[in-house]
Amino acid sequence: MTASAPSASATDRVFNFSAGPAVLPESVLREVQEEFLCLPGAGASLLEISHRDKLFVEILHNAENTLRSLLGISDDYSVMFMQGGATLQFSAIAANLLRGTDKTAQYLLTGSWGKKAIKEAKKEGKVVTAYDSADTNYDRLPTAADYTCPDDAAYLYYCSNETIQGVQFGSEPECPASVPLVSDASSDFLCRPLPVDKYGLLYACAQKNAGPAGVSVVVMRKDLLDIADPNIPGYLHYKNHHDNDSEWNTPPTFAIYVLGKVARWLQNDIGGLAKMEELNREKSQSLYKIIDESNGFYKGHAQTDCRSLMNVTFNLPSEEMTAKFVSEAGSHRLAALKGHRSVGGIRASIYNAMPREGVQALGDFMTDFASRNSG
Amino acid sequence: MTASAPSASATDRVFNFSAGPAVLPESVLREVQEEFLCLPGAGASLLEISHRDKLFVEILHNAENTLRSLLGISDDYSVMFMQGGATLQFSAIAANLLRGTDKTAQYLLTGSWGKKAIKEAKKEGKVVTAYDSADTNYDRLPTAADYTCPDDAAYLYYCSNETIQGVQFGSEPECPASVPLVSDASSDFLCRPLPVDKYGLLYACAQKNAGPAGVSVVVMRKDLLDIADPNIPGYLHYKNHHDNDSEWNTPPTFAIYVLGKVARWLQNDIGGLAKMEELNREKSQSLYKIIDESNGFYKGHAQTDCRSLMNVTFNLPSEEMTAKFVSEAGSHRLAALKGHRSVGGIRASIYNAMPREGVQALGDFMTDFASRNSG
Ligand SMILES: Cc1ncc(COP(=O)(O)O)c(C=O)c1O
Ligand SMILES: Cc1ncc(COP(=O)(O)O)c(C=O)c1O
Ligand SMILES: [Mg+2]
Ligand SMILES: [Mg+2]
Ligand SMILES: [Mg+2]
Ligand SMILES: [Mg+2]
Repeated sequence: MTASAPSASATDRVFNFSAGPAVLPESVLREVQEEFLCLPGAGASLLEISHRDKLFVEILHNAENTLRSLLGISDDYSVMFMQGGATLQFSAIAANLLRGTDKTAQYLLTGSWGKKAIKEAKKEGKVVTAYDSADTNYDRLPTAADYTCPDDAAYLYYCSNETIQGVQFGSEPECPASVPLVSDASSDFLCRPLPVDKYGLLYACAQKNAGPAGVSVVVMRKDLLDIADPNIPGYLHYKNHHDNDSEWNTPPTFAIYVLGKVARWLQNDIGGLAKMEELNREKSQSLYKIIDESNGFYKGHAQTDCRSLMNVTFNLPSEEMTAKFVSEAGSHRLAALKGHRSVGGIRASIYNAMPREGVQALGDFMTDFASRNSG
Repeated sequence: MTASAPSASATDRVFNFSAGPAVLPESVLREVQEEFLCLPGAGASLLEISHRDKLFVEILHNAENTLRSLLGISDDYSVMFMQGGATLQFSAIAANLLRGTDKTAQYLLTGSWGKKAIKEAKKEGKVVTAYDSADTNYDRLPTAADYTCPDDAAYLYYCSNETIQGVQFGSEPECPASVPLVSDASSDFLCRPLPVDKYGLLYACAQKNAGPAGVSVVVMRKDLLDIADPNIPGYLHYKNHHDNDSEWNTPPTFAIYVLGKVARWLQNDIGGLAKMEELNREKSQSLYKIIDESNGFYKGHAQTDCRSLMNVTFNLPSEEMTAKFVSEAGSHRLAALKGHRSVGGIRASIYNAMPREGVQALGDFMTDFASRNSG
């Protein structure tokens, strides 16, 4: 970690199954490294140029436009880049859309992140937990029959992919046309095409599937920008960010720059979100198949109909076996596989940037490990 | 900006006088570049590893400890890393220390940033502008005789260096012992030693003198952590960040990593803050001398007794001459010199990382330009 450290080569790299911050496309990392000291045309590092510099403004606009093109986001929606992570959004959503209204905010609680979002929303107004799968440790998702949402709710909130439990909605939950649908898409943003026009607001911190930590993307229907009481804290007020094209104050320039390159990689190298979804289905199915064919050695946490494309969660017969799995995997250059303590076992996060080869290597290891340790 | 772009070399670099994001030590940029693809020991880029990874936790602790050592910060103070820029602090300070109290927050208004801070504080409680130099376009600072602060104020707020106007306090403003002194040190943090124990809270966004955009440092007396109403938005609540060692949620890992390297550069390469102050005095005085000896061709904006070590602001005889200055400077590889529209003229930001050679080159250009264009 000093200037005299040997130059790191690609062969030093492991397959990194971290849930976030997480694996990024190697080609993007190489581009960033190449121009790190001196951004072409700038005479300085990207880190050193003003956010008002036309070179950076162009980078920011290109990032927005690539997202718009990937997701088919219309002009009815604002696309904003903010700091504070997904956690700041927990508060911002309720501060903008709930505070000062007599309405209720309706939450579908399907995992750990929804629970934290509810805690923040309750500080701002009336919150109803319209569905709650805590009893089964968040292993399932609701159908339309499992909850109701009043027509006059401030919004209906859900988390499209609960990162810790590994449960993912296959499509948007039923929501009255009069109610803005709000989604925490932090851990499955850009993993597949999305019908953005079904949403009032959707947001994602970048550090799982879209870039480095330090920036979140907020996609918000423009008519919702004017609801907020102007006395909410300025940084939480979406209108400030929208009106100033994400430069109300200094944006996290480097994180936006990397995010823009990841989006361009999705568009140009992968070929768009439909193609990305195909790859993600292939990758995740190969692991779920090994789980299902392990004669119970591996037990998936999520019910089969809501298994995540992004976070494959499963348990092993014992904690000792889990520890052995993690340790042996490490010797095979398969890193960051330990599950979250609330679910235990293993979590393999296989975001967009996880190459097929990484999933294949993990699958081979799982098969071998099971055959050596079961029965 | 593609992988096939020619590798940028140091000779492509200009002297960059941007007010922020701003120049960083070239040796730090080279270190980051070198280990960018693969952080030694991690098998992955710093961007890709979990904030809970022990390698990152160590980086974060080292960054904190280097700041503690540089500034002599005692255990009575918390050091926190947050997102949202200095602007989020405008709200956080008032939400934590003013909301729900019957006290007043006292503000010394000495420039553009203080004005924005006041606007946010007013949303949270009673604000008194105890001093205001708007009448002279913020060209001066108060002495103790120019304001009063009641003993029972929630806090006394000031901005130690107004980046746009280029006015800097030489020492802490007078403040009753019972009142927490709060400082926006965004643009002069780490430019000189500070008597931290005089403060209740001091904070700085990193992107001027301490690192890249995307992280702010908050130094807060620990007894103040418990004042806040627990119902303020969670991300604004300092106690959340303190109690979780800046990992209440995912911190901006890359920005903290770079900031840590900048702090280490200050300690090891520069030799600490007293030495840094000496260099900063030398650099800024060389420019102020040229201004003062230009027979009125250059007119400093700040009164001479409060000239900033960091942002040297001055006007030229006309807007045309200013434009000519900026354009010719550009051909001499002297970049980002245009002043903020509210002051006009030129602003040369010469933060810690601006090498002597850059200031020398600017000084030579100023002398030559004046001789060619005056009289
Ligand atoms: C679905 C989901 N929501 C919210 C968060 C919190 O994000 P942050 O740490 O950026 O606040 C995470 C992960 O950290 C997540 O996976
Ligand atoms: C003194 C001072 N305070 C506050 C700010 C605002 O910081 P940010 O843009 O990170 O919110 C700046 C500069 O941008 C500044 O120079
Ligand atoms: Mg930056
Ligand atoms: Mg816009
Ligand atoms: Mg990061
Ligand atoms: Mg701490």
